[in-house]
Amino acid sequence: MESRTYTTDATPGDEATVAGWVHEIRDLGGIAFIILRDTTGKIQIKFEKDEMDDDLVETGLGVHRESVIAVTGAVEKEERAPTGVEIVPENVDVVAEADPELPLDPSGKVDSELPTRLDNRTLDLRKDEVKAIFEIRAELLRSVREQFRELNCTEINTPKIVATGTEGGTELFPITYFGEEAFMNQSPQLFKQLMVGSGLERVFEIGPIFRAEEHNTPRHLNEATSIDFESAFYDEADAMDACESVVIAAYEGIAENCQEELEALGLAETFEVPDEGFPRLSYEEAIERINATGELDEQLVWGDDLPTEGERALGDEMGQHYFITEWPSEIKPFYIKDMDDDEQLSTGFDLMHPSMELVSGGQREHRFEHLVEGFEQQGLDPEAFEYYTKMFRYGMPPHAGWGLGGERLVMTMLGLDNIREAVLFPRDRQRLSP
Amino acid sequence: MESRTYTTDATPGDEATVAGWVHEIRDLGGIAFIILRDTTGKIQIKFEKDEMDDDLVETGLGVHRESVIAVTGAVEKEERAPTGVEIVPENVDVVAEADPELPLDPSGKVDSELPTRLDNRTLDLRKDEVKAIFEIRAELLRSVREQFRELNCTEINTPKIVATGTEGGTELFPITYFGEEAFMNQSPQLFKQLMVGSGLERVFEIGPIFRAEEHNTPRHLNEATSIDFESAFYDEADAMDACESVVIAAYEGIAENCQEELEALGLAETFEVPDEGFPRLSYEEAIERINATGELDEQLVWGDDLPTEGERALGDEMGQHYFITEWPSEIKPFYIKDMDDDEQLSTGFDLMHPSMELVSGGQREHRFEHLVEGFEQQGLDPEAFEYYTKMFRYGMPPHAGWGLGGERLVMTMLGLDNIREAVLFPRDRQRLSP
Repeated sequence: MESRTYTTDATPGDEATVAGWVHEIRDLGGIAFIILRDTTGKIQIKFEKDEMDDDLVETGLGVHRESVIAVTGAVEKEERAPTGVEIVPENVDVVAEADPELPLDPSGKVDSELPTRLDNRTLDLRKDEVKAIFEIRAELLRSVREQFRELNCTEINTPKIVATGTEGGTELFPITYFGEEAFMNQSPQLFKQLMVGSGLERVFEIGPIFRAEEHNTPRHLNEATSIDFESAFYDEADAMDACESVVIAAYEGIAENCQEELEALGLAETFEVPDEGFPRLSYEEAIERINATGELDEQLVWGDDLPTEGERALGDEMGQHYFITEWPSEIKPFYIKDMDDDEQLSTGFDLMHPSMELVSGGQREHRFEHLVEGFEQQGLDPEAFEYYTKMFRYGMPPHAGWGLGGERLVMTMLGLDNIREAVLFPRDRQRLSP
Repeated sequence: MESRTYTTDATPGDEATVAGWVHEIRDLGGIAFIILRDTTGKIQIKFEKDEMDDDLVETGLGVHRESVIAVTGAVEKEERAPTGVEIVPENVDVVAEADPELPLDPSGKVDSELPTRLDNRTLDLRKDEVKAIFEIRAELLRSVREQFRELNCTEINTPKIVATGTEGGTELFPITYFGEEAFMNQSPQLFKQLMVGSGLERVFEIGPIFRAEEHNTPRHLNEATSIDFESAFYDEADAMDACESVVIAAYEGIAENCQEELEALGLAETFEVPDEGFPRLSYEEAIERINATGELDEQLVWGDDLPTEGERALGDEMGQHYFITEWPSEIKPFYIKDMDDDEQLSTGFDLMHPSMELVSGGQREHRFEHLVEGFEQQGLDPEAFEYYTKMFRYGMPPHAGWGLGGERLVMTMLGLDNIREAVLFPRDRQRLSP
């Protein structure tokens, strides 16, 4: 099949073999058309019944929609054809016949509900606008990695099977590991920290994370892709700079390389790369501004986590990406360092898209004694994490980093309603297959 | 810390702040030296005791090895210094003091056993030759992705939590998933096949795979990195071409971008990019040649799998990468297509490095009826895989692909004795932490 021609490369005057799916069959009586679709686009195949071999016509027009066929013939100019060219077939091979009934309509004429689409992703991804999401997702990961390279990061891969979770036993999926209890890792947090204490200094990882959270919302997944960054000798401001550069690089990559996909999604005109210099709001300012919107039934007070409606109200006002900094220490995890001049305040930060949180980060606690204290305050047994804490006794530099939700970045970038749209085979409480 | 200078950038005549680990302290009496190490290299710090502030000398020379310090001072030319320059300190900050006793010696003067090294990866990776492995691993993944881009592949991410394994229930780690039984996926095989039947056509994935294999050898991991490729409209020969190009691209990337790391590993002189055109040997030829070596106690007969000693004996003869093709159908999995002209022979292939198998691939069975038959012959229940098989009824093109063991590629490329050397935090029967 390597000698086949992609539909978009079929040039009038050539003899070509194209192969793909039967997108549409239009039978007008004496003349009939097949619109053949491949990964690059579509092409019209013309059947003039009276002038062609009966077997050829019968084979071509006898297939069901979405069958795979290979067509050899002369490529001709035809202004009335959708792409300005058509093929007059000399041979049609039915490569893989499709059933007459399909569980969903890849031509997009009939809409399907999300569960049906997810059950039949193979067919769902034959639609240009669905395929576009995953082409964009792939380009996003490429652009992000490229930016990590600019930042002199080394890619790491850390284990997904672990003896202890990052933040204790809640929200962990248990595994049976050769008779021992183990868990699927909910974050590479502790491992990436161990690495910046080595000779690597600055690292990134893009990989799956697993969270046994019970809530079923359009913004949560039980298996997600985390984009993690960590650097030695960084403070939280450095980490925010790196974070902003990575998010902007993702948008730039899409703007540069995915115009066709943005068009398929109807976003070509509106897609914008965010400006540099994301505003940095303190937590205190954030709750004041949320309270001032009057959107919440109850006023937020210091120490409250930001409720979803609060994030939305603030996001509407901000209208762009922004950081929230200087969180109360008590609502940030043990591994986030407190401010040197006020231990009620933490160096933790979140990066917010107007519609939701994208990133959580901060400077890390690198001082052994403080770290062990933090474990105890959080009700965790430092002994269970000794593999991690003991490395802080052998020269652990100050460091900072963050984790970015890959699917949330895709979702907010493309304005998707449900995070499941950004995953090929999502996992949630109800969905374990396919 | 952003204003610090990396040791390799310290230029005579400048005032600089360098930060890193105390690699070595040499006290010669009136004069003493600290060798400071950062991610780029090392630099000498000179303490002339009589001419310097006592506090400064005490602070600098009072720290233990592997502590993190920041040193500000004038950079001066000094031919007797290891790198030709040294710093005369005006200020020394002890950033993170290390314990006097270390579980292993990052200077490499005292060797440690692998288990000690793996328990203390943070310290282990402070050694140039260990760090080099992981810098090379990162560059290898980058080069491989670049080649996939050349091949017009779309990156995909498929789920690691699954309801059914690729090849049935053996060798799967069970998970408790919201009260239901699930498994960690042993291969993205079925998912990547589902994707080439969509509009994506050609895909790759680099991600973790999980195998509950009991054997504990220097070549097996229970959690590994799989480099997966799949393309619609490819046959096994096309897939082998793509595979060869990816392996060569990995070597080329290292040769071009990792000279320093190869030097740290003592491989700068001997590292070679394999020539194009890996030989393709049929299974029949392979067993004949193995039998002819006389290395096996018992002669191989048609249908035998190749034992490790057989692979080694043949590898020694071949002395380069080579493919083994035309395997007996009965020893290849159900999803591998048989040859059209002889169904005793399969389209499956393995790519071999002289020392071990690297890749397993083949053309896939894309015909619904044959696929379901294959499941039954393998003793698997086709119903349990209906999410997969049913997509073969809606126009599944012929396709082929392969899976490449990421750690084996690193291991064979660098001549490592144990595959655990190629993983930051390996998982095996005995090792679940760190």
